[in-house]
Amino acid sequence: MYGLPLGDGTTAEGGAEFIGPTQDRIAALAQDMGVATFPTYNEGDNVYYRDGRRSLYATDGLLGAVPPDWGVIDLELALLRLGGMIEDVPVGEPWKAAKADEWDSQTFHTWSRSNSLSSGARFLMDVFVSSTLSARSRDVSLLYVLHYAAAAGNAGSPGSIDRLINTKDGAQELRFAGGPEQVPIRLAARLGDAVRYNAPVRSIATGGAGVTVTADGVTVSAKRAVVAMSPAIAGKIDFSPGLPASRAQLMQRYPMGSVAKFVGVYDTPFWREENLTGQALADSGAIDVTFDNSPPDGSRGILMGFINHDNVRRLDSASEAEVRAAGLESFGKLFGERAKSPVRTAMMRWDNETWSGGGPVGLAAPGVLTGFGPALREPCGPIHWAGTETSDYWTGYMDGAVRSGERVAREVGEAL
Amino acid sequence: MYGLPLGDGTTAEGGAEFIGPTQDRIAALAQDMGVATFPTYNEGDNVYYRDGRRSLYATDGLLGAVPPDWGVIDLELALLRLGGMIEDVPVGEPWKAAKADEWDSQTFHTWSRSNSLSSGARFLMDVFVSSTLSARSRDVSLLYVLHYAAAAGNAGSPGSIDRLINTKDGAQELRFAGGPEQVPIRLAARLGDAVRYNAPVRSIATGGAGVTVTADGVTVSAKRAVVAMSPAIAGKIDFSPGLPASRAQLMQRYPMGSVAKFVGVYDTPFWREENLTGQALADSGAIDVTFDNSPPDGSRGILMGFINHDNVRRLDSASEAEVRAAGLESFGKLFGERAKSPVRTAMMRWDNETWSGGGPVGLAAPGVLTGFGPALREPCGPIHWAGTETSDYWTGYMDGAVRSGERVAREVGEAL
Repeated sequence: MYGLPLGDGTTAEGGAEFIGPTQDRIAALAQDMGVATFPTYNEGDNVYYRDGRRSLYATDGLLGAVPPDWGVIDLELALLRLGGMIEDVPVGEPWKAAKADEWDSQTFHTWSRSNSLSSGARFLMDVFVSSTLSARSRDVSLLYVLHYAAAAGNAGSPGSIDRLINTKDGAQELRFAGGPEQVPIRLAARLGDAVRYNAPVRSIATGGAGVTVTADGVTVSAKRAVVAMSPAIAGKIDFSPGLPASRAQLMQRYPMGSVAKFVGVYDTPFWREENLTGQALADSGAIDVTFDNSPPDGSRGILMGFINHDNVRRLDSASEAEVRAAGLESFGKLFGERAKSPVRTAMMRWDNETWSGGGPVGLAAPGVLTGFGPALREPCGPIHWAGTETSDYWTGYMDGAVRSGERVAREVGEAL
Repeated sequence: MYGLPLGDGTTAEGGAEFIGPTQDRIAALAQDMGVATFPTYNEGDNVYYRDGRRSLYATDGLLGAVPPDWGVIDLELALLRLGGMIEDVPVGEPWKAAKADEWDSQTFHTWSRSNSLSSGARFLMDVFVSSTLSARSRDVSLLYVLHYAAAAGNAGSPGSIDRLINTKDGAQELRFAGGPEQVPIRLAARLGDAVRYNAPVRSIATGGAGVTVTADGVTVSAKRAVVAMSPAIAGKIDFSPGLPASRAQLMQRYPMGSVAKFVGVYDTPFWREENLTGQALADSGAIDVTFDNSPPDGSRGILMGFINHDNVRRLDSASEAEVRAAGLESFGKLFGERAKSPVRTAMMRWDNETWSGGGPVGLAAPGVLTGFGPALREPCGPIHWAGTETSDYWTGYMDGAVRSGERVAREVGEAL
């Protein structure tokens, strides 16, 4: 939820962006705040760029992208197997799956290679991980991926890979008028002076009556504290006395993904004239996934591309001009020459943002969910944990963040 | 390097403990400080406890522990394959191995299961990881394990798994008279007032003339700073401006292992009478690896057991009495009834120690060495990095810590 300034008084989504079916809690909160939604542009074909060849595909989802050969069957079988396993993951408690040990002993890379033969199926499983987690398949455990997909639903509708990756009927279906940051901005306005800005918390001391939280310029004493941060970033706070080992060690092993968002602004969404959605998947170049981020009236065109994992790490110390050149080269390859000449560009480099440390979400390598998972949510005395990583449904998404807030509010209410 | 008080004015090794061949730099420093060494007690048989059965074995090393059946061949073949791969890892730069991508895409668990069939071979590969890294085979990448073994040597003698795990001719060959902590204690005495105690560094600001380091009770300005801490713990420092993303994200993904040391003190080293070394491997109970930690003259007996990974996490929130009961149950199972009745016990629970956050060393899950490895050592402006994790040889050991100090001293000298 971050409005990326475009230099002309308007903004594009620089961080979290979409909302989709079963994301009920962010939907309710947005409605409460009077923030409307509109459909992500999704008319026409998507671009598929692989092995130096550009082609088009019509269908949402991974299967639609595979050239129609035996790779489709290969991928379909792998997705069927994944779907079966996802059903067996207890939402919010993946470490309790009957096969949790087996699934948490291997990377998703290992599983995907053992369960496919075609390079097409393997590429699409990798790009599924990259587009949803900004990570490579080797950075996360199979159990974590299953857990993430199992969480892409609600109590009435189980999660699935399709719901994670799809635009229509999926997590990218809708966008927010004015940007999703309108939700916290309006919420903060209601709260007034209770919200302190630019005051990073440096230490939390517990004992006696409760907690003492020391931030830059303000110290607060209370009965309970809620830490609503990614585990890795919460690890920067000095807790005294030290946290229980399970929590302290979890915060050492739940790293953020590596991601930047790159945006090109054009006079018109010219790709629409060519019957393109603006969505693309690519196996090379800085950007591997794109979306049409134009305003709802299409009064101008905005292309957005994700620079993920190794691709962004290569550019973490690059100048803005170098990132711009790399981003526009990707856009040109995917959407033609016109895409190389935007009116302006903008970018949000989450890896370089001190208080995020990457994005979009904390990741779990093998061994972490089974060894440390319960510590994600378990309160440490008067310290409670919120944040999207602690959510049962839609962990990693704005909806998960809101759910975690509702859960922790109940938790604190019951404790007081 | 921590002397564990035994309550009678003496200490046992509570942290790092051993020194072995090719560990030249800690050897030289210890000699310089006048700290003598003596052989780790190693006469007789070792205890092997598996599937509820206790047996004895005579030989050092993993192979000696396997009951003489086809599991020996199974393990030998796996170790031969590992040995070949270890030779192909560039020491100190494992990410440059020709097969680094392949080896860093899988856990050691995945590799060990794909390259063995017998439960005996699998157990011993797991206990190799546990005893050297205080981790499970799924917690680390294959590349990390190969790198760790390749580092167990010096420029004249390549590293190997045997040198990591053996007592005779290996990393556990010798101990330090008075404990290894005599080395830093005497070094600090030479340095006098230059060493500040109980002053954790809270922030490091860079810019202009150099660095400003703010610790509890003292602020120091200098041209350069050396941070000699494990990456995960260094991540608690507030760096301003923020560190480059490669380093900041590395510090999120180099977690400490999970370990405690449990010690039982007896009137005599009674196991020696039964022709036992005091060394044991076990597949159940709190303790999976033991050593004879008696003083050099054998005037009393001290058994030491490692409580590793899941075993210690289960006990992280347990009372001292509960840990004591679990530790003595293990000792009894391995060394008989007398082992259950020590004069006293002591323990060092590294997971619960705020400034260590676990032990013995920072670990790398799949994707970390290839994605972030160079950031282990690369200076960030005037900030230089030391600590055993940054060493080429004997990373994870006291020798690696000393080597890293010598390397960083040269590095800073050249920069000034």
